[in-house]
Amino acid sequence: MMLRHFAHGSPDFKADFDAFLREDRSSDHDVVTSVTRILDDVETKGGKAVADYTAKYDELQIDPTTLDSDNVNLHALAAECPQDLCEAIDFAHDRIAAYHMAQRPSDHSFTDSLGVELGWRWTPLDSVGVYVPGGRASYPSSVLMNTVPARIAGVARIVMVAPAPGGELAPSVAYAALKAGVHEYYPIGGAQAIGALALGAARLKPVDKIVGPGNAYVAEAKRQVFGRVGIDTIAGPSEVLVIADHTANPEWVAADLLAQAEHDPSSQSILVTVDEAVGKAVEIAVENQLKDLATGERARTSWDRHGAIIHVPDLATAAEISNRVAPEHLELAIADPDALLPLIRHAGAVFLGHMTPEALGDYVTGSNHVLPTSRSARFGSGLGLNDFMKRMSIQRVSPKGFAALAPAALRLAEAERLPAHARSITIRSNPGGGDG
Amino acid sequence: MMLRHFAHGSPDFKADFDAFLREDRSSDHDVVTSVTRILDDVETKGGKAVADYTAKYDELQIDPTTLDSDNVNLHALAAECPQDLCEAIDFAHDRIAAYHMAQRPSDHSFTDSLGVELGWRWTPLDSVGVYVPGGRASYPSSVLMNTVPARIAGVARIVMVAPAPGGELAPSVAYAALKAGVHEYYPIGGAQAIGALALGAARLKPVDKIVGPGNAYVAEAKRQVFGRVGIDTIAGPSEVLVIADHTANPEWVAADLLAQAEHDPSSQSILVTVDEAVGKAVEIAVENQLKDLATGERARTSWDRHGAIIHVPDLATAAEISNRVAPEHLELAIADPDALLPLIRHAGAVFLGHMTPEALGDYVTGSNHVLPTSRSARFGSGLGLNDFMKRMSIQRVSPKGFAALAPAALRLAEAERLPAHARSITIRSNPGGGDG
Repeated sequence: MMLRHFAHGSPDFKADFDAFLREDRSSDHDVVTSVTRILDDVETKGGKAVADYTAKYDELQIDPTTLDSDNVNLHALAAECPQDLCEAIDFAHDRIAAYHMAQRPSDHSFTDSLGVELGWRWTPLDSVGVYVPGGRASYPSSVLMNTVPARIAGVARIVMVAPAPGGELAPSVAYAALKAGVHEYYPIGGAQAIGALALGAARLKPVDKIVGPGNAYVAEAKRQVFGRVGIDTIAGPSEVLVIADHTANPEWVAADLLAQAEHDPSSQSILVTVDEAVGKAVEIAVENQLKDLATGERARTSWDRHGAIIHVPDLATAAEISNRVAPEHLELAIADPDALLPLIRHAGAVFLGHMTPEALGDYVTGSNHVLPTSRSARFGSGLGLNDFMKRMSIQRVSPKGFAALAPAALRLAEAERLPAHARSITIRSNPGGGDG
Repeated sequence: MMLRHFAHGSPDFKADFDAFLREDRSSDHDVVTSVTRILDDVETKGGKAVADYTAKYDELQIDPTTLDSDNVNLHALAAECPQDLCEAIDFAHDRIAAYHMAQRPSDHSFTDSLGVELGWRWTPLDSVGVYVPGGRASYPSSVLMNTVPARIAGVARIVMVAPAPGGELAPSVAYAALKAGVHEYYPIGGAQAIGALALGAARLKPVDKIVGPGNAYVAEAKRQVFGRVGIDTIAGPSEVLVIADHTANPEWVAADLLAQAEHDPSSQSILVTVDEAVGKAVEIAVENQLKDLATGERARTSWDRHGAIIHVPDLATAAEISNRVAPEHLELAIADPDALLPLIRHAGAVFLGHMTPEALGDYVTGSNHVLPTSRSARFGSGLGLNDFMKRMSIQRVSPKGFAALAPAALRLAEAERLPAHARSITIRSNPGGGDG
């Protein structure tokens, strides 16, 4: 498949673009059955099952009663993290912490005219499991983004799992975990790690919610344990959409498109431009930059299979296209991004202006880089403090309020044929019982 | 199985109570396979599949191109809703609307000391599907609770599905749907309705998120479509926990326990009391009230199988027990509920004092009655305005901010072996390109 070009004015645009949006970028492994089996094994055999799968998939021997390996020690590994990298992690950490402090939700309480007191109170989760992928690349930034908000929210127990194939774990991941405030770490991964977090296994006590990205097995395992525990989201392939006008620098835009494409062959990079010359120049720049890119093979596959350049007559149309895509990342590489922003309805994160490449947000603006992927910005938000808290509703009815509310509640209980509901109201309407 | 009594002081308490908490109250139909088949059918055969399943399960003929039935007209049905019931629905509607108006989240923006502008903006979902159960009972309150917050949030397209077995739909449900602002209605239910909402079928265009409770098939279908569309939660059996002291009226408490038990044989009602006499009196009152309850069979099964009375030495222990249960509904039937509230960490909704039975919250306090069930208040919140909106993060980096952020971002990109990320930063650090 080759890079697609769309012209908004062409007669086939709507049909072609609809088909483009419907394309499935996820891999089509049939993982459901094997995940179900792994979770069953973890539930029935506990630590033994987790140890067996870890030996099989990660070539790592762990103790089935502690789920630990003497070869993977977080503190020892963290000490190996280069000083300048530790400082970059500290810098990112502090900015992420500051940003998420600003997200703290407020409790609320009000009493209405009938004397009914209503409101809510936010409390942190007791425990959270953070999944950190291992393998091909190590992502200390992912550790920070998933863990720091949990700590700021007040979660008392933060458990990290990250597979350590053959005993290998990146020192930067270990350093970031300790910096971010992880309380427990287990060198396990895959569906078996999700099972251990959700159901408990050996020394690992179950957590209340699991966050963090993973491969198709991890995603399916999260789907299957959802309900027993909370999950953040089912992460799919990620994407960037850049809206560019004549003020955009094609080399910069090309670099940003490739920064998304290099993640994975299933990543998607889309340019929407009102300037035909910019579109052509970006396409040439992408080809040039691909030549000396170490991750060029992945990026090339992503760009050829899923990339697109879309020409539109005006910025309002560009916004409409973007809303239909609902991209995880949206860059407004235009002269006046503030003028366009009000038209943007669906995006995970919006990067305003030429000096705000997505890569800064991935690491150090402080904003969370865990964002709704694969068009799920239509209904989802990025990770935030509220993902680690929950809202208890609080209500109190005064005797005056009770008298005002009772008749309608009774009528509805009757209509819904719930006589015990009705009695819990009528019994309080009669004198003689309790002291109000 | 008979009603369980637990005494906090007994040596077996911890083990017994842990076992009690682990009991699975959900039914164990093997629904996964049939739901997968139904969703596949809807995806491949569209409206024809939906019509076939509706004919089979609901004995209702619908047009496969419109998914409509001439026999189920929302306006005609609403006109049959008795006047006093319509007024009760209006009363509940207005209170629910007022309450959820108070939940509107705020946009936020700030510029930090490095000149980085950060913040977020909330926008409504474009479309929402509301599932309303049919069958045994009709629940106009459920229509209001799931639909009104969507309308207040600004959702432009609210689609209701509610099965109408044999053409039957409660006039009160129809009236509540029109009052609440439903834009489209289809007389379909089950997994096929969830499939039609998520994937689209015939005239029904896909929605972005699906909310509302349903049976095991509906819950499993929501689990399977999660990711393609948003879902509210996987609803399980519901529960109430009442904490009572010597000021509690045993008859009132018994009525409240039965109001939960009458919902379903899998419902759970738990009394935690510091007063032994109250515990005994409540047990007797439950037996007495069960005698003349029209829903007594369901309530009896629920109470015998899943009910419990737990004696504790003090209110702090009662709070700790309640936190471990993380009940959907928590009533504080005690002299000073405000003193205990700070100790409550996990509950869907808390009802303060003797005059605030759950039944008022189910219908007319204005607070949402869609709450985290089956211990999911450990990690989840009740339905709220934010379920129908999402938060886009917004960021803008100034040239000064860029210079401050670039080194750490570069170092992290290098550590994560993402050279195109690095280039999207270095390329902007060099002079000559773009106009900033």
